[in-house]
Amino acid sequence: MAQAATGSMTFGEDIVRRIAALGAITEAPGQLTRIFLTPEHRAAADLLLQWMREAGMAAHLDAIGNVCGRYEGERPGLPCLMLGSHYDTVRDAGKWDGPLGLITAIACVADLHRRDIRLPFAVEVTGFADEEGVRYASTLLGSRAVAGTFDESVLGVKDQAGIAMRDALVAFGLDPDHIGAAARARRELLAYVELHIEQGPVLEGLNLPVGVVTAIAGATRLAVSLTGMAGHAGTVPMALRRDALTGAAECIVEIEEFCRTDPDGLVGTVGTIHAAPGATNVIPGQVAFTIDIRAPDDTHRKLAVADIVRRIEAIAKRRRLALQIDVTHENRSAPCAPWLRGQLSRAVAAEGFRAFELPSGAGHDGMAMIDISDVGMLFVRCRGGISHHPDEHVDVTDADAGARVLLRLIENFSLQKS
Amino acid sequence: MAQAATGSMTFGEDIVRRIAALGAITEAPGQLTRIFLTPEHRAAADLLLQWMREAGMAAHLDAIGNVCGRYEGERPGLPCLMLGSHYDTVRDAGKWDGPLGLITAIACVADLHRRDIRLPFAVEVTGFADEEGVRYASTLLGSRAVAGTFDESVLGVKDQAGIAMRDALVAFGLDPDHIGAAARARRELLAYVELHIEQGPVLEGLNLPVGVVTAIAGATRLAVSLTGMAGHAGTVPMALRRDALTGAAECIVEIEEFCRTDPDGLVGTVGTIHAAPGATNVIPGQVAFTIDIRAPDDTHRKLAVADIVRRIEAIAKRRRLALQIDVTHENRSAPCAPWLRGQLSRAVAAEGFRAFELPSGAGHDGMAMIDISDVGMLFVRCRGGISHHPDEHVDVTDADAGARVLLRLIENFSLQKS
Repeated sequence: MAQAATGSMTFGEDIVRRIAALGAITEAPGQLTRIFLTPEHRAAADLLLQWMREAGMAAHLDAIGNVCGRYEGERPGLPCLMLGSHYDTVRDAGKWDGPLGLITAIACVADLHRRDIRLPFAVEVTGFADEEGVRYASTLLGSRAVAGTFDESVLGVKDQAGIAMRDALVAFGLDPDHIGAAARARRELLAYVELHIEQGPVLEGLNLPVGVVTAIAGATRLAVSLTGMAGHAGTVPMALRRDALTGAAECIVEIEEFCRTDPDGLVGTVGTIHAAPGATNVIPGQVAFTIDIRAPDDTHRKLAVADIVRRIEAIAKRRRLALQIDVTHENRSAPCAPWLRGQLSRAVAAEGFRAFELPSGAGHDGMAMIDISDVGMLFVRCRGGISHHPDEHVDVTDADAGARVLLRLIENFSLQKS
Repeated sequence: MAQAATGSMTFGEDIVRRIAALGAITEAPGQLTRIFLTPEHRAAADLLLQWMREAGMAAHLDAIGNVCGRYEGERPGLPCLMLGSHYDTVRDAGKWDGPLGLITAIACVADLHRRDIRLPFAVEVTGFADEEGVRYASTLLGSRAVAGTFDESVLGVKDQAGIAMRDALVAFGLDPDHIGAAARARRELLAYVELHIEQGPVLEGLNLPVGVVTAIAGATRLAVSLTGMAGHAGTVPMALRRDALTGAAECIVEIEEFCRTDPDGLVGTVGTIHAAPGATNVIPGQVAFTIDIRAPDDTHRKLAVADIVRRIEAIAKRRRLALQIDVTHENRSAPCAPWLRGQLSRAVAAEGFRAFELPSGAGHDGMAMIDISDVGMLFVRCRGGISHHPDEHVDVTDADAGARVLLRLIENFSLQKS
C-alpha cells in the first residue's frame, strides 16, 4: 500500500487527520460552518497553503480567494493536470464535502514530492473558495473565476448582514478589481479531475469504495401553483370539489412514477409543498409546490420536463384547477470526458476495485471548469449517502482507496484521449 | 305571500333588514366578529331580546347567555316547539351563519303575533350564545347548557387574553354558579327545529331555495405522520428513496378516491400538510397531514375510517415509511327525526318547492339538542356555498322562502310522529 507523506501513516490516516484539522476551523463552536470570505475561511486557506508548500508546491491565493498550489513537472511551465475541490461549507456541515477532494489531492502530491517524482506535466491543486453559495446568491464563485465566467455584477450583492461581496473580498485581503486575474487559459490545463464524496447511497448499496462519474446532471426547478376552490370539509360533496391538494397529490404521484420508470437516471423531487388556507376542516383552495428534475443528459431532461408539465396540465384541466408553472432554475449538465472516465476506470481497476460508473446528481465545480477543460470525477463512498449534515462520514479505508486511485491516475496520466 | 310583522315588507325584506342590523354589531370595524361574552355579544343579545319582545314573546337571557323568547300557546305553560340558532360568529364572518335561523324564527313568531294566532303548543325561540367555539376550546356551549350536558370544568378555561370563562360570564352579567339553571327538561320540548344556511353548494347546484336535512354528519379527525428518509434531490436514485411526501400524496389520492366512490354521503378532506425539511433540493423525510372524515351514518363512518387507515398502513408498509395515526377528534352524527323531516318536506312542498333532502356536513346546535329532543333542520341556499367568510350571502327571495316554509311548519305542526 502506498504510504502518505508523513511516512508512517497510510493515505487514509493522513487524510482523516487533515480532515479533522480543517474541520476544526469553524465560526460555530460544536458545529462546522465555514462561509466564503469569513475569518475562518481565511484561516482555512492559510492552513491549506501551508500544507501545499509542505507537499512541495508553490502556493498562493488567487483574486477570488482560491487556494492555488502548483507542483512543477519535468521542467517548469508545463501545462497541468488540475485537481481540486472546494473548502467552503454549508451551515452545520459535514467535514468531507469539498475538503476530501482537496486534501486527497494534496496528499497525492506530497507522496510524489516525497518520492521525488516529476511527471511530464505539472500537477496543480486548487481549493475553490466558494462552491456552496451560502453567503451570496451565486454558487461556484471560485471555479467560475478560474474558468473566466465570473459575473462581476455579483460583486455588488450583499449578504444577510448587508456586506457587499466587494467589501468582503477587501476584508479577506483581496482586490475585487482584479478578479479577472484568477482566470486560467484552456491551454494551461490538460484536464480537471475532482475527487468528491458521493453524497448519495449508490456506492454503499453496491459495496464499492469508489465510482467513476459519467456526468454532473443538469437540473430544472419548477414552481407549481394549483388553484381550486376552498370550501367547508363537511358541506361540499366530493363530486363538487375543486380541491387543490388532491390535485397536487395526483401530480406528485405522477412525477414519481414518471421518474421511477425512466431508464436513464432521471430523478424528480417535490421537496416543498404549501396548502392554503391550511385548516383541518377546510378544503385547500390553493397549493404551491416545487419540482426538482435532474438527468445526466440535457436533451433527456428537457423532454422529461416537457412531459411532466404536460401531465400536470392534464391533471389541472381535468380537475378544473387553475395552473401556473414557472421555471425558477435551470442548468445544463457537465458530461465527464470519455477519455478521463477511461483513465479513472483503469486506475480503479488497477487498485483492485470494480470500475463502476454513475452520474452525479449534485452540482460540483466541474460544472464551471468544463468551460475551459475536459472534466473527470471520482466519487468516494460516504456512509448512508448522508451529506450536508454533521453525520457525513467517510471510512478511513475508503479515503485511502480514493487516494490510491487518484495517485494511480496521476502517475499513469496520459494525454492519449482514448 | 305572507307579510312580515312590519306590514309592508315581505318576510325576506324584513329578515335582510334585521340581518344587516345584527351584522353591524361587531368588535372589528369593517368586518364581522362577534365572540362569546364580549361587549358586542351582549349588545347583540339586547337587540335580540328587544325583537323578541316586539314579536310578542316573553324574553330573557339564561345562565350561559342564550337569548330565550317564549310565545305562549292557547294556554300558558304548554310544551313548546323550540326554534333556534346561534348568534356568535367566527372571526371575519358572514352575517347569515346562525342569525338567519334566529331572525327567521323571530319573524315567524312576529307574524303569528300580528295575526293574533295562538297554537295548541308554545313556540320558543332560542338564540344560542356560543356555537362556533372561537373563544374557548369547546363548541356548542349554548345548546349544551340547554341540553343539560354543559361540562362545568370548562368554566376554568382561559381565552387567549387569559380571561377564564367564569370571569367572562360575570362580566357579561351572568352567574357562573348557576349554569345548570339553563338546562331544559325533555318534557318541555315537543321538538327542536333549526333553519340554517347550507354552507355548501348542493342547493345552488340543484337550483333549490331550501332543503330538508337528513342528519348532521358525525366526524372523525385523524393526524397522520409518515417518516421516511430525507436525502439529496440529485444523488438518491428513485429506487432507493423513502420519500415521505410521495407516500403522503398516494394516501391523499387514495382517500379522495375512496370517498368519491362512496354512495352514502361520505366526505374526506386532507386540509393541512407539512413536509420537512422543506427545501426544493431535499427529499422530504417527514410529512404530517390531517384527515377529516364525515358521514351521516356513524357505523358507515367508522367502517370507512377503519378502511382508510388500513389503506394508509398498506401504503406506508410498501414504501417502508414509519407511520403514526392519531384520532384527534370524534363526534357522533345527529340524525334528524323522520317525523320532523316529513313535516318539513310537506311544508316545503306546500310552498311550491321540490322537497329535497340532504345531509349536513357542518356541525349545528342540533348535535347538542338531540340529547333532550327530536331534531329537525331546514337548509337555505347560500351563494356559492360560501360560509365563514364576508362573501357569505343569501338572496332575499331565498330568505323569504325559508321563512314561509318555517311558518308553514309551525302553523301545521302536528305531534303525530308520522
